Amino acid sequence: MLSLRPTDTGQRQFHSYMLGAIAPRPIAFVSTIDQSGNPNVSPFSFFNAMGTNPPILVFSPSRSGRTGKTKNTYDNILEVPEAVVNVVTVSMVHQASLASGEYPKGVNEFEKAGFTQLPSELVRPFRVKESPVQMECKIRDTVETGKGGGAGIIVIAEILLIHLEETILGTDGLIDPDKIQLAGRMGSDFYCNASGTSLFRIPQPGPVLGIGIDALPDQIRTSSYLTGKHLAQLASVNSLPEYFDNASIKKNIAPLGYIKKGKIPVNREKQFYRKIIRLLDEGNTTGAWKFILKTLPDEN
Amino acid sequence: MLSLRPTDTGQRQFHSYMLGAIAPRPIAFVSTIDQSGNPNVSPFSFFNAMGTNPPILVFSPSRSGRTGKTKNTYDNILEVPEAVVNVVTVSMVHQASLASGEYPKGVNEFEKAGFTQLPSELVRPFRVKESPVQMECKIRDTVETGKGGGAGIIVIAEILLIHLEETILGTDGLIDPDKIQLAGRMGSDFYCNASGTSLFRIPQPGPVLGIGIDALPDQIRTSSYLTGKHLAQLASVNSLPEYFDNASIKKNIAPLGYIKKGKIPVNREKQFYRKIIRLLDEGNTTGAWKFILKTLPDEN
Repeated sequence: MLSLRPTDTGQRQFHSYMLGAIAPRPIAFVSTIDQSGNPNVSPFSFFNAMGTNPPILVFSPSRSGRTGKTKNTYDNILEVPEAVVNVVTVSMVHQASLASGEYPKGVNEFEKAGFTQLPSELVRPFRVKESPVQMECKIRDTVETGKGGGAGIIVIAEILLIHLEETILGTDGLIDPDKIQLAGRMGSDFYCNASGTSLFRIPQPGPVLGIGIDALPDQIRTSSYLTGKHLAQLASVNSLPEYFDNASIKKNIAPLGYIKKGKIPVNREKQFYRKIIRLLDEGNTTGAWKFILKTLPDEN
Repeated sequence: MLSLRPTDTGQRQFHSYMLGAIAPRPIAFVSTIDQSGNPNVSPFSFFNAMGTNPPILVFSPSRSGRTGKTKNTYDNILEVPEAVVNVVTVSMVHQASLASGEYPKGVNEFEKAGFTQLPSELVRPFRVKESPVQMECKIRDTVETGKGGGAGIIVIAEILLIHLEETILGTDGLIDPDKIQLAGRMGSDFYCNASGTSLFRIPQPGPVLGIGIDALPDQIRTSSYLTGKHLAQLASVNSLPEYFDNASIKKNIAPLGYIKKGKIPVNREKQFYRKIIRLLDEGNTTGAWKFILKTLPDEN
């Protein structure tokens, strides 16, 4: 393993490791305005939500790595502490990248990048008409984390009003990732298309907790057939008794103790785990557990 | 368009819009320790880099939406202001999700989620052995943005030491997205695989700026054949003269003025744009410009 201190590593190299490791990053296409009314729009991938009550975003218009100078976005925010944060879709991202060039103050990046200015309702900066989600924000605070080239400036913004295109919503009323088709930022000149075949689902833990991998039967937990993914799926159930079909087992035996003792004969192992893997890869955790509990020999 | 104020919208619904729109999000698998030495590890997708000099991260262990209580991660940071931020790969993400359950203080999520504790060099919290990038951090500050359920707590961390598995590096020494295979967080129970066919590249603007879409010839800029992506590619070149083969044109005519006057006859338009689109989709912007400049009639 490579172990590097930022102080012993070239800043450019350390920067590239950070961008390659902290990914995929959402992209904020941030619209601001100076006190004379000149609009600016620029993309930032040092960006995320930080909380939902109140709804808080952060993004960082870092100092230029080359010159140490602040960007127009930050200068504008000091003059007019408002912003519209627009999301960036795959179809917009080439244009948004064009706007990331540091054009001189006064140049309108909406025009340079071919986007349309849409007046906001609660703040002075314009919305980006082509973006399917536009968040009107007031700036709550800014935190400068350094003064050199590449130093971050944390802009803390509160969402006052969110605009959503109806076309990005699924039948359940939620944003459908295949309809919004967001672009994410990776290291180097890579981007990521966060839709289609790149998507997968993991059922989220509720208020009742998973039993945990440490609670799995030893034989299963240490099996060379199963990956961490399979173990995590088996360990995500809230309790085991619900998976018992056999009422006598349910009544008479402490379930975890029971399956901890069970032992599949070596000559049946391969077949046993192949079926469990198939069921888990289909997302059928309940089926996998039922099969395990049916197959493990009853020691009664 | 739907326009919603947070105050007029149910918190759960507003939360779901934020998670669906601000994506894909990188995942911090944050290891902390309390003053008695009990370890904790939990994933947070409200996370990103904020600057590289010094290297700064933020993440938010938000208050529970259900109870308003703070999480063990934050409580630990108040006791021991250190953390290891580990990245989350596709092969780790099911296990990391298991650790996102709010197990009681004192329960070791490393064991629950089947991960291995690795001692750090400069801080007390453990690294996650299975993660290919582990960042040892000191906490510089925390900012509570509210006190209710779902309120964000911005933890500002500085990286002291980064550990990288050599296996994730490409031949150029940079992190290869297809080798690290990071997972990103989307809305609802969706995740995104940030590698393979989901990746694409956009050449990054350098210190010399693109000419901009507003500087494109009117006929091209307003063509119904080209998308914003194609226009952005054409507009990303730094200047046009470098694309001229014809020395006489290069010498005698102001390039932008020249191509602004050029006009493709309507009966050749479809063929003309089809070829431009093919070249641009292949990433051959230079070829597309050469073809445009060769084809546009010479008005000399």
